[in-house]
Amino acid sequence: MGWDTKCRVSYVLYAVGLIGVIMFVDVNVPSISTREQLRRNWLSLTDVEDYVVEAVNPSNIRTFLRNLTLNLHLGGTENEWNTAQWVADTWQQQGMDEVHLVPYKVLLSYPSASNPNQVRLLDGSGRQMWVSAIKQKPLYAPEESSSDIPFNFNGYGAAGNVMGPLVYAHYGSEEDFAFLANAGVNISGTIVLARYGQSFRANIAQRAEEQGALGLLLFSDPADYAPAGPDFVYPHSYFMPPSAAPLGTTKLVDGDPLTPFYPATESAFRIPEEEAPIPKIPVQPISYSDAFDLLSELSGAAAPQTWQGDLNITYHLGPAFREAEWSVNLEVNNYNTMTTTYNVIGVLQGREEPDRYVMLGNHLDSWLFGAVDPSSGTAAMLELSRVFLQLYNETGWRPRRSLVFCGWGAEEYGMVGSVEWTEQFAKQLSNRAVAYLNVDMAIEGNYTLRTKSAPILTEAVYQSARRIPNPNPEEVAAGRTTVYDTWAHRRPDPVQPDFPLMQLIGSGSDYKGLQHNIGVPCMDTRYTHDDKTLGEPMYHTLYETFALVDEIYDRGFKYHSAVTALWGDLAVKLAESKILPFSLHIYADYISKAQKNIEEIYGQIISSQNISLEFFADAAVNFNKAVTSFDKVLNGLDQNNPLAVRRVNDQLMLVERSFIDPQGLPGRSDYNHVITAPSKNNAYGGTAFAGLVDTLTAINEASKNDKKPLWRIFAQHLAAVTHFLNTAAKVLSDDLW
Amino acid sequence: MGWDTKCRVSYVLYAVGLIGVIMFVDVNVPSISTREQLRRNWLSLTDVEDYVVEAVNPSNIRTFLRNLTLNLHLGGTENEWNTAQWVADTWQQQGMDEVHLVPYKVLLSYPSASNPNQVRLLDGSGRQMWVSAIKQKPLYAPEESSSDIPFNFNGYGAAGNVMGPLVYAHYGSEEDFAFLANAGVNISGTIVLARYGQSFRANIAQRAEEQGALGLLLFSDPADYAPAGPDFVYPHSYFMPPSAAPLGTTKLVDGDPLTPFYPATESAFRIPEEEAPIPKIPVQPISYSDAFDLLSELSGAAAPQTWQGDLNITYHLGPAFREAEWSVNLEVNNYNTMTTTYNVIGVLQGREEPDRYVMLGNHLDSWLFGAVDPSSGTAAMLELSRVFLQLYNETGWRPRRSLVFCGWGAEEYGMVGSVEWTEQFAKQLSNRAVAYLNVDMAIEGNYTLRTKSAPILTEAVYQSARRIPNPNPEEVAAGRTTVYDTWAHRRPDPVQPDFPLMQLIGSGSDYKGLQHNIGVPCMDTRYTHDDKTLGEPMYHTLYETFALVDEIYDRGFKYHSAVTALWGDLAVKLAESKILPFSLHIYADYISKAQKNIEEIYGQIISSQNISLEFFADAAVNFNKAVTSFDKVLNGLDQNNPLAVRRVNDQLMLVERSFIDPQGLPGRSDYNHVITAPSKNNAYGGTAFAGLVDTLTAINEASKNDKKPLWRIFAQHLAAVTHFLNTAAKVLSDDLW
Repeated sequence: MGWDTKCRVSYVLYAVGLIGVIMFVDVNVPSISTREQLRRNWLSLTDVEDYVVEAVNPSNIRTFLRNLTLNLHLGGTENEWNTAQWVADTWQQQGMDEVHLVPYKVLLSYPSASNPNQVRLLDGSGRQMWVSAIKQKPLYAPEESSSDIPFNFNGYGAAGNVMGPLVYAHYGSEEDFAFLANAGVNISGTIVLARYGQSFRANIAQRAEEQGALGLLLFSDPADYAPAGPDFVYPHSYFMPPSAAPLGTTKLVDGDPLTPFYPATESAFRIPEEEAPIPKIPVQPISYSDAFDLLSELSGAAAPQTWQGDLNITYHLGPAFREAEWSVNLEVNNYNTMTTTYNVIGVLQGREEPDRYVMLGNHLDSWLFGAVDPSSGTAAMLELSRVFLQLYNETGWRPRRSLVFCGWGAEEYGMVGSVEWTEQFAKQLSNRAVAYLNVDMAIEGNYTLRTKSAPILTEAVYQSARRIPNPNPEEVAAGRTTVYDTWAHRRPDPVQPDFPLMQLIGSGSDYKGLQHNIGVPCMDTRYTHDDKTLGEPMYHTLYETFALVDEIYDRGFKYHSAVTALWGDLAVKLAESKILPFSLHIYADYISKAQKNIEEIYGQIISSQNISLEFFADAAVNFNKAVTSFDKVLNGLDQNNPLAVRRVNDQLMLVERSFIDPQGLPGRSDYNHVITAPSKNNAYGGTAFAGLVDTLTAINEASKNDKKPLWRIFAQHLAAVTHFLNTAAKVLSDDLW
Repeated sequence: MGWDTKCRVSYVLYAVGLIGVIMFVDVNVPSISTREQLRRNWLSLTDVEDYVVEAVNPSNIRTFLRNLTLNLHLGGTENEWNTAQWVADTWQQQGMDEVHLVPYKVLLSYPSASNPNQVRLLDGSGRQMWVSAIKQKPLYAPEESSSDIPFNFNGYGAAGNVMGPLVYAHYGSEEDFAFLANAGVNISGTIVLARYGQSFRANIAQRAEEQGALGLLLFSDPADYAPAGPDFVYPHSYFMPPSAAPLGTTKLVDGDPLTPFYPATESAFRIPEEEAPIPKIPVQPISYSDAFDLLSELSGAAAPQTWQGDLNITYHLGPAFREAEWSVNLEVNNYNTMTTTYNVIGVLQGREEPDRYVMLGNHLDSWLFGAVDPSSGTAAMLELSRVFLQLYNETGWRPRRSLVFCGWGAEEYGMVGSVEWTEQFAKQLSNRAVAYLNVDMAIEGNYTLRTKSAPILTEAVYQSARRIPNPNPEEVAAGRTTVYDTWAHRRPDPVQPDFPLMQLIGSGSDYKGLQHNIGVPCMDTRYTHDDKTLGEPMYHTLYETFALVDEIYDRGFKYHSAVTALWGDLAVKLAESKILPFSLHIYADYISKAQKNIEEIYGQIISSQNISLEFFADAAVNFNKAVTSFDKVLNGLDQNNPLAVRRVNDQLMLVERSFIDPQGLPGRSDYNHVITAPSKNNAYGGTAFAGLVDTLTAINEASKNDKKPLWRIFAQHLAAVTHFLNTAAKVLSDDLW
């Protein structure tokens, strides 16, 4: 791409520009003046928390967001580079100790600039009877009409020009494909039309490809994204308009597709592109307006009632069309290319433990304008760094541990920048990282907080949420004065309804490598919508504009501010508390419940194989006991002995690392965390002990002959899980026996 | 085995007995009295070193050795358990803070108690014309006549009764087998007779098996082990007598063969025995007396001059015998069985950083009486622990970091106890271990010190060796007053002749898991023989008796004392120095040389494949630069800031870990260290960048079509090595860019 050279040059200049900053840090950090000592002594943890919560300024966030969404910033393009540089400049101006751009050479995917991807209906003689839209129609914000907007595409969808009958496959889940097979609908040689919203699109593509489909079309049904009917869609509401065609990646394995396990530095070895974990078939998003046109022409058996959507027709399964000899033609002109994406890393060094990292991050790239995903989060991050650096500039305060701010590149392509960085710095992060706090979008609604985390962070998140004033005046009027209150009220934990629902961290954003490959406890939070839609309706569409956020979602940026304050409060707790605020009891409890759950649901079938669940149960008990013993250690700890404090904190940090199996989960070498990995069948959601549960699911679905090797895999992984649980119990001491 | 239940019961009782000790520690360690504070302040590093070196008492070592060698102590047997318990008791009596027996359930191999393994010569009608000895003949020490002595066997040699022609295969190396193939000698269907001494026996067995051999006989040629002729053999000297048949393992992968990657705890998953990495063919050691009988009957082409040994005949290649229709019959009645082996772990807790471990270890099991291997080392370890605990008891001194003493089980079977333990405590060790100092045998001669180590320990070893008085009066008279002087004189580094030869740590003893899987810097030292033999002649034979050590090798136990003192001095340096005494410059230099070496030897052929060595060279330079910058950090360090000291030490510790590739070396998932792994073709020796060099060797030997995939493997591994070198450079800072 033409801009590659230019970026390289800028980068060099930029690095030179940074030298002054680095020298400044080298000189000032080690020696701390008496003045700072004094200030440090009267700035208690609570003082800092109060400062951060109060200092967050909504109008700053609005301004940051306005700037970030003026242009497109697709991963690996000059626009992304501009955004990265702007973030880096902002951090430098704010006074960050260190700011660096970290480049990776990766394989990304783009639509042709001249030949749009198109779906056509052809009659028996090959005549074009209908053609899909090539872009999303401008509806409201001026920038929607920008000539820079790329043609609709799905990242890594293969280039191709295929023709065949059409099959409607509902959400494209395993069950949906099984239903079609039972109904006698053969996928092989067809083009599949599936609804987005329940499976990660890369999973749908994989399933379609495995069954021999020639191509895949994805649409979002108004039933799922425009439930209030055609009059209540963008720009009149945040529901999806008919012309929206959400973009998104179809790569299943995270990070650069050519450099599995290793960072995509210049010296990396790259596997041939044909071995990359990306679809071999064309995949293309279409609007529900276009889906309506296609489905209107489709015949075959009527789809079952549960498969019907809100388009005003009866959905048929296909593969035939109403008109004899019609077929669908999918032309995709995407191309894959090596390009450079940049992470921006900014550091505010810790005063006592600069080598302990509390990390905060958000990605910089977006499919289009990305006002929600990710720029609402970027704006929050820039305001939060401003607040911390203002505190530092005013008082000399530094956090006990370092704060590391991370702006990730090319997340939308499948966590490319963050995974490559995690691979590059795996040793350091494994040794030194305390936690990673991700805000992908600060808001995707204004209904309630939605948080996913490693169980070890749950209590700290709860405590922070209890400190954050409720941005919703109606909720305050109802007596729910904090973010926590509304969260607990509107999204209670179904098992413990007094508490808000804390979801297990799954995958789907930049915590993936840190949580699942390294074992750094991660959290992801945002304000979200109610459950009337399957996700944020404007997600990855053209209509994710500044106006959407500024005029519809968050007038006054109060919800952004609440998320920013929560994020900051949590960072302070983790960076400043002498003893890391890790909720071991919640983790132990979580593990026990998940273990008992497996026992209850699968106990009988497992013991029928002469596999004992006893050691697994014992290991869960061992971890619980170790956690209780550790309380006593903490109670007896001399908190004035810095090495004694470091020792217990290192033990605490080692708990999450204990669950990392270097051998990977069964059949999934890109996931190592035996407890928090998401289930194989949906990369978004979290499932406790996914390696066990997925294998049991596979056993259940396997033919009789195929079950035996799967039982061996199950027994093998069960022993591994047991070992790592026992390890987690032991790392809370110095015992080597 | 009959004794298994008994061991289990004793273990339980023993664990109960330990509770008192544990409680004692809990009460006393954290609170340090003023008296101890005082004492600690006046005990400088040098004071402690002097104390340790001076306090080592040769007659104690002699007594320990006498006790240890009264009985057999084969891995996994009641005798091994008795030894472990005795070591544990000794440590408790000495006053160790913690002593624990750590059990593993593993697959070990034993000869039948009733049906000896035998080699026979049969005539055409199957009549037995000759039969080998079933045990080694008692020659001198009374215990050699013990009825408990097992029949001669090789660990994990398969049970079997095979018959076929005999082929003499020299040392059984790749080249030797290639020579035979060129000479038209087909190995398939034959029994191979190979000399021990140049290849690890498991490698020979693997090669023989791969070529279709039915069985393998191993003997030690007098040319290699009795060079002074038949009159100068044990008990008249330490050269090998004709009846010696050295035992040894034939398992190639280290640790328990049934639990790769995971510890052999009770809850472990065990692979089926048929998948274990052990020979499928019978393997049996015979004496050179028996080898003479066999070779005397062998015909076929005469072996080349270089293949001839010192037996007073012409060695022929076979496969025919002089007598028509004769054949050799190998009957092996070994059996594999699940049994329990125990490590003994003793801890003297550190006063400031109890969570940093300086580990010292030796294995407890032996093939027979093991007076050299390993009990000379065990005796040294017990004396060294006595010295440290005497210092503690006298003065209240504790090391800054914890000393962890390790008595390993079942090492002779292939590092079983230590590898399982390393697998069990991998997370903790990776996080906390400073170094591991191994003494397998304290002495196997009295000629010079022989040390293998990770390059990062070289300088500390040199410094310690310079402090240890020379045990050889003749050398002292010649002006070489220290152990170092004789080492430098008798075994100089061929490249830097002013320095003694420090060998790269290979494999072959209990540092394997720690060095090669975890990246804990390891060292192994001993006093050794001159180079007149291929190893210690009595190694693994019946004649490794107390008398051999006491009357021949080390009258007065001065050499044992020197090794003990060196070991202790080095442990003090590592446990007590505020800044870890790691020789980064030596490491950087070593890496640069090895990198340039590859460039010089293979540069042309590598670039002919369009593979660039530039990044690799750059990475070596980067590491060198980082090491130089780190000097400045150390110079500017406030050594009174405990967390600042900890920070640089943690960075130092991370250097060796940086070289661990979780993906394993090419085709060798049981080796992870990209620099220090031994070459594939000989598990004993160390080769820098073995993954690169082995792959290049394989490319060289491969047919034209097979080269291409090997070049890909090379390029892939080269990129990995480059990445880990760059990582090692970065971990010496807090940089995440």
